[in-house]
Amino acid sequence: MSGHLYILGMGPGDPELVTRKAERILRYISFYAYFAKKGEVGHARKIADDMIVSTQQELRFEYPITTEIPHKTNEYKQALSLFYDECADIIEQHLKNNQDVALLCEGDPLFYGSAMYILERLQPSYSTHIVPGISAMSGCWSNAQLPIVKYEQTLTVLPATLSSEELVTKLCYCNAVVIMKIGRNLSKVKQALQEANMYDKAIYIERGTQVQEKIMPLSEFTGIAPYFSLILIAG
Amino acid sequence: MSGHLYILGMGPGDPELVTRKAERILRYISFYAYFAKKGEVGHARKIADDMIVSTQQELRFEYPITTEIPHKTNEYKQALSLFYDECADIIEQHLKNNQDVALLCEGDPLFYGSAMYILERLQPSYSTHIVPGISAMSGCWSNAQLPIVKYEQTLTVLPATLSSEELVTKLCYCNAVVIMKIGRNLSKVKQALQEANMYDKAIYIERGTQVQEKIMPLSEFTGIAPYFSLILIAG
Ligand SMILES: C[S@@+](CC[C@H](N)C(=O)[O-])C[C@H]1O[C@@H](n2cnc3c(N)ncnc32)[C@H](O)[C@@H]1O
Ligand SMILES: C[S@@+](CC[C@H](N)C(=O)[O-])C[C@H]1O[C@@H](n2cnc3c(N)ncnc32)[C@H](O)[C@@H]1O
Repeated sequence: MSGHLYILGMGPGDPELVTRKAERILRYISFYAYFAKKGEVGHARKIADDMIVSTQQELRFEYPITTEIPHKTNEYKQALSLFYDECADIIEQHLKNNQDVALLCEGDPLFYGSAMYILERLQPSYSTHIVPGISAMSGCWSNAQLPIVKYEQTLTVLPATLSSEELVTKLCYCNAVVIMKIGRNLSKVKQALQEANMYDKAIYIERGTQVQEKIMPLSEFTGIAPYFSLILIAG
Repeated sequence: MSGHLYILGMGPGDPELVTRKAERILRYISFYAYFAKKGEVGHARKIADDMIVSTQQELRFEYPITTEIPHKTNEYKQALSLFYDECADIIEQHLKNNQDVALLCEGDPLFYGSAMYILERLQPSYSTHIVPGISAMSGCWSNAQLPIVKYEQTLTVLPATLSSEELVTKLCYCNAVVIMKIGRNLSKVKQALQEANMYDKAIYIERGTQVQEKIMPLSEFTGIAPYFSLILIAG
């Protein structure tokens, strides 16, 4: 007899965008886990605040400090892979003791989420359940009141970490577009959108559904884009 | 003083996948509206069942019988446009009387949803709010436990109503793919996936998160695909 692993999508920020199912599981679970950067509360953990009580036990998984290693190197990938191994091991100890664990995730867990690396490690041997969450893009187009795709339009989601050339080439085949992971890639993305003739339609959204949400035409945004930002272009 | 229009995403089928926010609004609202096909309960209405009480007033919008008119003709588009005008008029009467209305929608409202046609009619004059919902694709990849995109992968969502040529051309530029609106387009889609060399990776999902959910490799599915079906190809 082993415990169950629940991977819970916590949505983009507004705690009211959590599903009834994630809330129910969260309120009953004795062990909850989450990822966080050093010195930060952890985004998914923060969203869960009003549903957690002090008798529940926390498993905090702090990302290793990897900023000094370039992100595309094998060294970086290896450091992360070891980190996910360790996280999966800790969860596994609880499952083996017949204890259920809930892993809290930003947005929708299997859509560019770290939870998939835990899932792939434990799925073969344990009972795993995924509760979908509202994705960041869905929270953003809803708050922007922007119908993103209709009829026979297509939607493409691109990470801003692609190279300039890849971005431009892909954009030219696109209809509606979402660009994720803006952050330091902002100026590269702006230029790619200009080359693909899509700049004027682009909407910039920062911290969508969170207290400090910003929504504006990309052409009016001048500051530095934080990690929690994306760009929408309706079909 | 006018009422507010709330457009509520009800998710893909499991009533527990409704957000806390949609539930709160649904429980307080006096007037709720929804679309339905003639003779059917209405998918969004069915999901809301356990949250609605008999003192709440229902505005049921029945799609005009348009099956005898080919879907790509102007005549069909005109019939639908008139229908949405009428629905918006009915909602508007309530808003003018300072009554709030909630429009219930399948999945995520602004992602291929009819609610956008009501939004565009009322947005200019009234206070409108969109509550995002779990999309069908997100419910499906979660229940299939299929990590859909990671790292620098891209996701493309295609409607199966595109022509064979368009499907094949677009698939060839894709990484992870979701194909919506399968229904009668199944054999066309199967062939396009074969031509694009993606057939063996394709997962077929019918009535995702609903009681009669089916999940299997597309190559093993032989029956007739219902309206509520889609195809996933992980990145
Ligand atoms: C690693 S991905 C995680 C995506 C998440 N699993 C989801 O379903 O949306 C992180 C990226 O999501 C986007 N994101 C997450 N939350 C956001 C928010 N509240 N507002 C805007 N973008 C957000 C940003 O582009 C960020 O770089
Ligand atoms: C008009 S679109 C509406 C999409 C919806 N707004 C959303 O966010 O997913 C209808 C299509 O969604 C897909 N769909 C909706 N619910 C589904 C379910 N429970 N399982 C599988 N596919 C579903 C089917 O492909 C269907 O043809």
